[in-house]
Amino acid sequence: MNILITGGLGFIGSTLAIAEVKRGNKVIVVDALFPDYGGNKFNINQIKDDIEIEIGDVRNTTLMEKLVKGQDIVYSLAGTLSHVDSMTDPFTDLEINCVSQLTLLEACRKYNREAKILFAGTRNQYGRAKYLPVDENHPMEPVDVNGINNIAAEWYYRLYHNIHGLRTCSLRLTNVYGSRHQMKHPRQGVLNWFIRQLIDGKTVELFGDGSQIRDINFVDDTIAAFTLAADSPKSNGEVFNLGGDAVSLESFVKSAIKVFGKGDFKTIPFPAERKSIEVGDYIADRSKIKDKLDWEPRVNLESGLKKTFDYYLKYKKYYWK
Amino acid sequence: MNILITGGLGFIGSTLAIAEVKRGNKVIVVDALFPDYGGNKFNINQIKDDIEIEIGDVRNTTLMEKLVKGQDIVYSLAGTLSHVDSMTDPFTDLEINCVSQLTLLEACRKYNREAKILFAGTRNQYGRAKYLPVDENHPMEPVDVNGINNIAAEWYYRLYHNIHGLRTCSLRLTNVYGSRHQMKHPRQGVLNWFIRQLIDGKTVELFGDGSQIRDINFVDDTIAAFTLAADSPKSNGEVFNLGGDAVSLESFVKSAIKVFGKGDFKTIPFPAERKSIEVGDYIADRSKIKDKLDWEPRVNLESGLKKTFDYYLKYKKYYWK
Repeated sequence: MNILITGGLGFIGSTLAIAEVKRGNKVIVVDALFPDYGGNKFNINQIKDDIEIEIGDVRNTTLMEKLVKGQDIVYSLAGTLSHVDSMTDPFTDLEINCVSQLTLLEACRKYNREAKILFAGTRNQYGRAKYLPVDENHPMEPVDVNGINNIAAEWYYRLYHNIHGLRTCSLRLTNVYGSRHQMKHPRQGVLNWFIRQLIDGKTVELFGDGSQIRDINFVDDTIAAFTLAADSPKSNGEVFNLGGDAVSLESFVKSAIKVFGKGDFKTIPFPAERKSIEVGDYIADRSKIKDKLDWEPRVNLESGLKKTFDYYLKYKKYYWK
Repeated sequence: MNILITGGLGFIGSTLAIAEVKRGNKVIVVDALFPDYGGNKFNINQIKDDIEIEIGDVRNTTLMEKLVKGQDIVYSLAGTLSHVDSMTDPFTDLEINCVSQLTLLEACRKYNREAKILFAGTRNQYGRAKYLPVDENHPMEPVDVNGINNIAAEWYYRLYHNIHGLRTCSLRLTNVYGSRHQMKHPRQGVLNWFIRQLIDGKTVELFGDGSQIRDINFVDDTIAAFTLAADSPKSNGEVFNLGGDAVSLESFVKSAIKVFGKGDFKTIPFPAERKSIEVGDYIADRSKIKDKLDWEPRVNLESGLKKTFDYYLKYKKYYWK
């Protein structure tokens, strides 16, 4: 099969590219390599001779129209993830997360109506949980601009299925950690940031009392959900929660310290700009994707942490600065 | 008070401008006068010497930053309303209905955090009704791009209240008819289009069997809701449904024929591009705005139709071409 991955030099995109090459598929990755967005050429080092790499912006209509032609699967993973950045620079978040998704869908509507198109949604669409675990019918009441733009983007995918007949699917990702995540700042995911702090011998700082529950996935499990959804007609027009281990941030850090063999942590008060958009505990109900696609996370926390530490200890120089 | 009205040469914007001048307020209207969008200089003819008119685009950040300064109330009425247009040109709908709302809110966040800011939402955010009447907690499952973009825009307003403390409010409008609506095409509202067909002596064409229920307001009632919401602190951070008479489109046309004294209608099959985005019956639950702001529609259908026919018979030349 022919595969296009936007954001394909990023954390999840590059891991997907490696998985698709292993499946024997022909992969094109497109990535703008914007500073701080997570794209890193080293991420695809092991497959760099097997894939096509296009450095470009998903907001570029002409480029996207060219790239979608002839693809069997399109993974739309280019996006910004930062809650805080979306509040300080809402227009960029809107362009990258909303306008560019419409650009991709319009390109497919015009030039490739047969492709399966996968969107990476986010638990951030729900805002604060009104009940736990959160299922796909939970109200969406976002607490930051990033959540709003992802809601709109996901609706474009659903609409282009419902009205135009495109084969789209959205996976609402929860916190994902693992190899190939950028390690330069904490704004795209705090779990990998904790791991860097430990490797750097720094005291991990937890906001509040560290008791906030997050539902976390090791990246390989997330990738498995994407390829399952890509392959199954049962996912057409659907949205699915992903989820894995529900752990407090303190408990995650304690597990990381145990796996790494050293390190410590402390709690500090929430910074003001974080406090206002903190959503509290989150636990995903993942029964829908289990029922429909038979997906379950398979990598336990200890094993995922071990793989992550091993990766960064070996390839630190490609991620630290 | 100082009042800014975006889309202020349009149907609702111009009627609001006249109402605010009558209240003794100082009004600036901004309108891009895009062809087919409904802006018409004649709409404000009776107050043209009492207000300031700025011909400009709400997507222009610099312009909006200049205009919001010193305003007590900002009515955000610039927007596109067409369900069908939003499907054929989704990017323009996104820019006008989503990007420009963020532009306005950011301008207020930076330069006028005290203003009361009113957004015109739409029943189109709900999609097909799952139950009737539709209250504000009804799920929002839009069936066209316009609905999606309005959901995102309204969420920006709620978020800028919740996080940044701006005094925002959204009124989810239902079908509005009356004087000052553009009469050149049916894409922004079918009710006034029926009225034009009758004045032109044409047979009114109803899609399907004409039994679709719409919940309709005469424009003066809609204006009263906006000014009430603008004046009351109880509306801060809130969303409200508007609603009025629940009538079938056939029954609306029959009333119009009765008021006008002549005319006829026929039913025709839905055109394909309409069928896929037709939402079926809609009846609004307007109890929240009645409870909180004591708003109720006061103009009955016969009286609203009479005013509308009188207006267009008198000023036809300013609206027909």
